[in-house]
Amino acid sequence: MAGTNSERQLLAEGPAIILVEPQMGENIGMVARAMANFGLAELRLVNPRDGWPNEKALATASKADHVIEETKVYDTLEQAVADLNFVYATTARERDGYKPVRSPVIAAETLRARFRAGEGTGILFGRERWGLTNEEVALADEIVTFPVNPAFASLNIAQAVLLMSYEWMKSGMEDLGAVPFQAMGQTPSTKEQLFGLFDQLEEALDARGYFHPAGKKPKMVDNLRAVLSRRAFTEQEISVLRGVISSLDRFSRKSPRGGRFPTAAKETPPDDSADA
Amino acid sequence: MAGTNSERQLLAEGPAIILVEPQMGENIGMVARAMANFGLAELRLVNPRDGWPNEKALATASKADHVIEETKVYDTLEQAVADLNFVYATTARERDGYKPVRSPVIAAETLRARFRAGEGTGILFGRERWGLTNEEVALADEIVTFPVNPAFASLNIAQAVLLMSYEWMKSGMEDLGAVPFQAMGQTPSTKEQLFGLFDQLEEALDARGYFHPAGKKPKMVDNLRAVLSRRAFTEQEISVLRGVISSLDRFSRKSPRGGRFPTAAKETPPDDSADA
Repeated sequence: MAGTNSERQLLAEGPAIILVEPQMGENIGMVARAMANFGLAELRLVNPRDGWPNEKALATASKADHVIEETKVYDTLEQAVADLNFVYATTARERDGYKPVRSPVIAAETLRARFRAGEGTGILFGRERWGLTNEEVALADEIVTFPVNPAFASLNIAQAVLLMSYEWMKSGMEDLGAVPFQAMGQTPSTKEQLFGLFDQLEEALDARGYFHPAGKKPKMVDNLRAVLSRRAFTEQEISVLRGVISSLDRFSRKSPRGGRFPTAAKETPPDDSADA
Repeated sequence: MAGTNSERQLLAEGPAIILVEPQMGENIGMVARAMANFGLAELRLVNPRDGWPNEKALATASKADHVIEETKVYDTLEQAVADLNFVYATTARERDGYKPVRSPVIAAETLRARFRAGEGTGILFGRERWGLTNEEVALADEIVTFPVNPAFASLNIAQAVLLMSYEWMKSGMEDLGAVPFQAMGQTPSTKEQLFGLFDQLEEALDARGYFHPAGKKPKMVDNLRAVLSRRAFTEQEISVLRGVISSLDRFSRKSPRGGRFPTAAKETPPDDSADA
């Protein structure tokens, strides 16, 4: 989906993403893109199968050049995490062990708090086919795992990085309901405008004998008003509705009853303005 | 990452995912996989460029067969949403309009509440290159957009579906900290066991003149105890620590000071059992 604005601030901070022995260059590129989408920038590779740099990674990174260009390669996981203070290992399957297991939400909040405190942090992701070894998990402080469909749990590496990057972005937001742009402002109509609509409609209906028998009129009016006041129409919407009623009330049908869009309607457009 | 357990319950319910004029079969397959990961199953395609079924979609669906097999194809978006009660449109860029704009968290909670109330719900995703038209957005009830890096906002269609599917799964969880498996249970040691460790260590250090000058001993003991009690060691961990102290205390170095792993240590392994 389009929407990038290159004049806006480029977020590039937060935990290092550490891929242990990644096999496919395409996956490394998709990881870089997912990181860039959510403001992460530090990618570390441990012993990538096809070496580095990697043409296929460049192709799938989709212009996440700032991530790809700064990617660092290490011979061992120990070297890749040496300067970090706190590291998560991602895993999909249960491990025998005493390390705390966290959800992505809790892990991201923990990483955010440690990042703000000045700690170096990282998240380990294993090989495409079989993840991290127990020895590699043992080098991390805690484990993070994803709340997946138990019967269909296989996330690929780029998806797993995407979810953690997304939770990282969210962990920096004060309000999880915040959105980058809003609907145009809408002020509900005044009650006077609403009552004008009631009056116009009820008069037009009354003139046609709609309220029949007369004893039921109060209840029928209540029902009509309930329908029209359930949503707070704006002034503009009230105006449109009054135009519709005016058109139905004043003008007779110009052509015999036909399809959904009778051509006569195009020749004589209904008056869409308010008629107070 | 591995972890699928085919004997576990297959989640397959929730909003329909509706792709409008998807172009690449690979993307459709990755969408199906992302849906299956997080328990969604109903995929609808509006006028897919390369027809349906699609070999490339099957290849990238990674065994999300139950999603691919039930995928339905429609000629128009109007037909694809006809039976639904509430529909979100996803968009990355701001639209002129009055539709409420929601974050993924709020949108997923809304969808979950409506799903529980028996409503038919759906989420629209646009074409790979340019998303949904304004006319298509107009067919939805509300808009959902993602909290992305402003300067690098382009999510691909499979990523966008993954994030909404993930938030759908989370919206059904009572506790966002919940994880599918836990660390092995750990009971902290009793205080008596901890005090035994203090006594053993302090005695061994005292025998070597560690507490010097004598006037500083109380403060030095305080510091030592603070280090050893900051984390609640388990009984087993206390046992390991006491074994280490025993080894250092009782045995003299068998070889001249050498590398990090003197060979002598292998010939005479230290006693690793507790020595109370």
